Amino acid sequence: MDHALTLSRRGLGNTWPNPAVGCVLVREGRVVGRGWTQPGGRPHAEVRALMQAGDAARGATAYVTLEPCSHHGKTPPCAEALIGAGVARVVTALTDPDPRVSGRGHAMLRAAGIEVTENIRAEAARDLQRGFLTRVTQGRPMLTLKLATSFDGRIATASGESQWITGPAARRHVHLLRLTHDAVMVGGGTARADRPALNVRGLGMVRQPVRIVVSGQALPDLPEEGTDHGPLWQFSGSPESFMADLGARGLTRVFCEGGGELAASLLRAGLVDQLIGYSAGIVLGGDGRAATGPLGLVHLADAPRFQLVESRRIGADLMHRWLRDQAS
Amino acid sequence: MDHALTLSRRGLGNTWPNPAVGCVLVREGRVVGRGWTQPGGRPHAEVRALMQAGDAARGATAYVTLEPCSHHGKTPPCAEALIGAGVARVVTALTDPDPRVSGRGHAMLRAAGIEVTENIRAEAARDLQRGFLTRVTQGRPMLTLKLATSFDGRIATASGESQWITGPAARRHVHLLRLTHDAVMVGGGTARADRPALNVRGLGMVRQPVRIVVSGQALPDLPEEGTDHGPLWQFSGSPESFMADLGARGLTRVFCEGGGELAASLLRAGLVDQLIGYSAGIVLGGDGRAATGPLGLVHLADAPRFQLVESRRIGADLMHRWLRDQAS
Repeated sequence: MDHALTLSRRGLGNTWPNPAVGCVLVREGRVVGRGWTQPGGRPHAEVRALMQAGDAARGATAYVTLEPCSHHGKTPPCAEALIGAGVARVVTALTDPDPRVSGRGHAMLRAAGIEVTENIRAEAARDLQRGFLTRVTQGRPMLTLKLATSFDGRIATASGESQWITGPAARRHVHLLRLTHDAVMVGGGTARADRPALNVRGLGMVRQPVRIVVSGQALPDLPEEGTDHGPLWQFSGSPESFMADLGARGLTRVFCEGGGELAASLLRAGLVDQLIGYSAGIVLGGDGRAATGPLGLVHLADAPRFQLVESRRIGADLMHRWLRDQAS
Repeated sequence: MDHALTLSRRGLGNTWPNPAVGCVLVREGRVVGRGWTQPGGRPHAEVRALMQAGDAARGATAYVTLEPCSHHGKTPPCAEALIGAGVARVVTALTDPDPRVSGRGHAMLRAAGIEVTENIRAEAARDLQRGFLTRVTQGRPMLTLKLATSFDGRIATASGESQWITGPAARRHVHLLRLTHDAVMVGGGTARADRPALNVRGLGMVRQPVRIVVSGQALPDLPEEGTDHGPLWQFSGSPESFMADLGARGLTRVFCEGGGELAASLLRAGLVDQLIGYSAGIVLGGDGRAATGPLGLVHLADAPRFQLVESRRIGADLMHRWLRDQAS
């Protein structure tokens, strides 16, 4: 299953509106097929793995990071494909929360005499498929908020100088994160001040993320959609409403890179699922520019809370990742 | 040598004005003596290790984290003791920068026919003895600045609520850090607002650190010196002058816990050698209280810079330690 989870990562940012799934077929202790959801969401992981395995799929065990689909959508159901190929056993990490599937994929497999084992490495799968799960259960994409700051949480000196606080390795890591999200989002102030490219650079030919600017005003000239830039979408209104719009358009993972006012409005609305901090070894002082706008908090108990998932050095900087506290 | 370095740690915060040294005696592949500088700075590590080894010291190799002393101070020189015990070889991590010793300890050993190897694990030893080295070379103690903040670098909500941002494990870790420093320092505002105990709690009977309050005004009632509280010293004036005073009094390691104005004045003066951050998974917003006062920086290039040494989870929080960039 760990292998299947690793394969599923390849689809992150690349398969929306579909989930990024991984599948590994094992027969007599040998891997006979590997697949992951292809760009745009099709073919599904199971179909790719079965194609690779051919006749070797007969009697094999399939490890899949999500319950195989059971409905006829744009492709025939994967559960049917696994049955047709003569797979003997299916191990899954998660039950699909999509009401068209939920439990039916597993039931279809069992009805065909296949042994099914569920909930293997469920927590890791939930972390990887958080975007898809959030869209299905809450009708909006998962939101990651990135803040790259000085040791003391500042994004610029008092006079506004901000390039560069973090180093080249951290900035390259940001491009990797853009790549694994469906869209990159900034506020109107940031769009006007920085004219950010909001694309993935230095990582070869990739599917560029959608660019989202949240602003009620006219946007500055930004590059046209093309090979190097994803579509440009403008939204305004409340965070709840534009996040629901993004979910309706099929986005599963959105990466917000500021500015402070947009970050604060998303935090106040309880819409930030994941925080990623880059802390640099530089102190800018209390008169430096803050990374987030005002939250108007009186009591600590009302502040949004997150749980540390991982931290590591990236170049000279410290990267730390936090997930929203489910209790808060 | 790693064993000797570990032993030397036991003296940190406990041996001023003397350095915290570790010594291990090895004969025929077996440890025959171990010693570290005792509370108050005497006996020295070598003497303790030799006492433990007795006759077994003859022909042994001594691993010492600092060049053995060669002068008659309050104790006879350790170099003489090693010679007298018949040690065959001495391996050291650092040459003593104290002009009364520098190189003479090594020379005295060599003159007695002892084989001497220098600079083994010098970097790790320099990190551990930074306090002593700073006092000898710069006439002031090493200064550690601690900031315990929210993810976005805040120490209180807009309304001033601050207890507790970090969790109990991080707060306990702070007591360990107090224990390994000679003194704990706060500004007058913090002393008046919080009446902090500035002592080590929950770690058994320990030598309490000196309490330093930097303030030009009268202090609030603070507990008297005794078993649970170290001496209370008040200073005012420029950071350069009171840090020189502290060096003259023999302090080697000072732990500053704020507030923001004192932290900013120490940072502006370039006197912060080590930064220790505790980041909590909570966001307080740009209207929360900043951890440091204004630095008045215009250009990023003028900001104080630090290099990441380590980071790890402590309870629910992230601890990160940085050392001043030698180039800045």
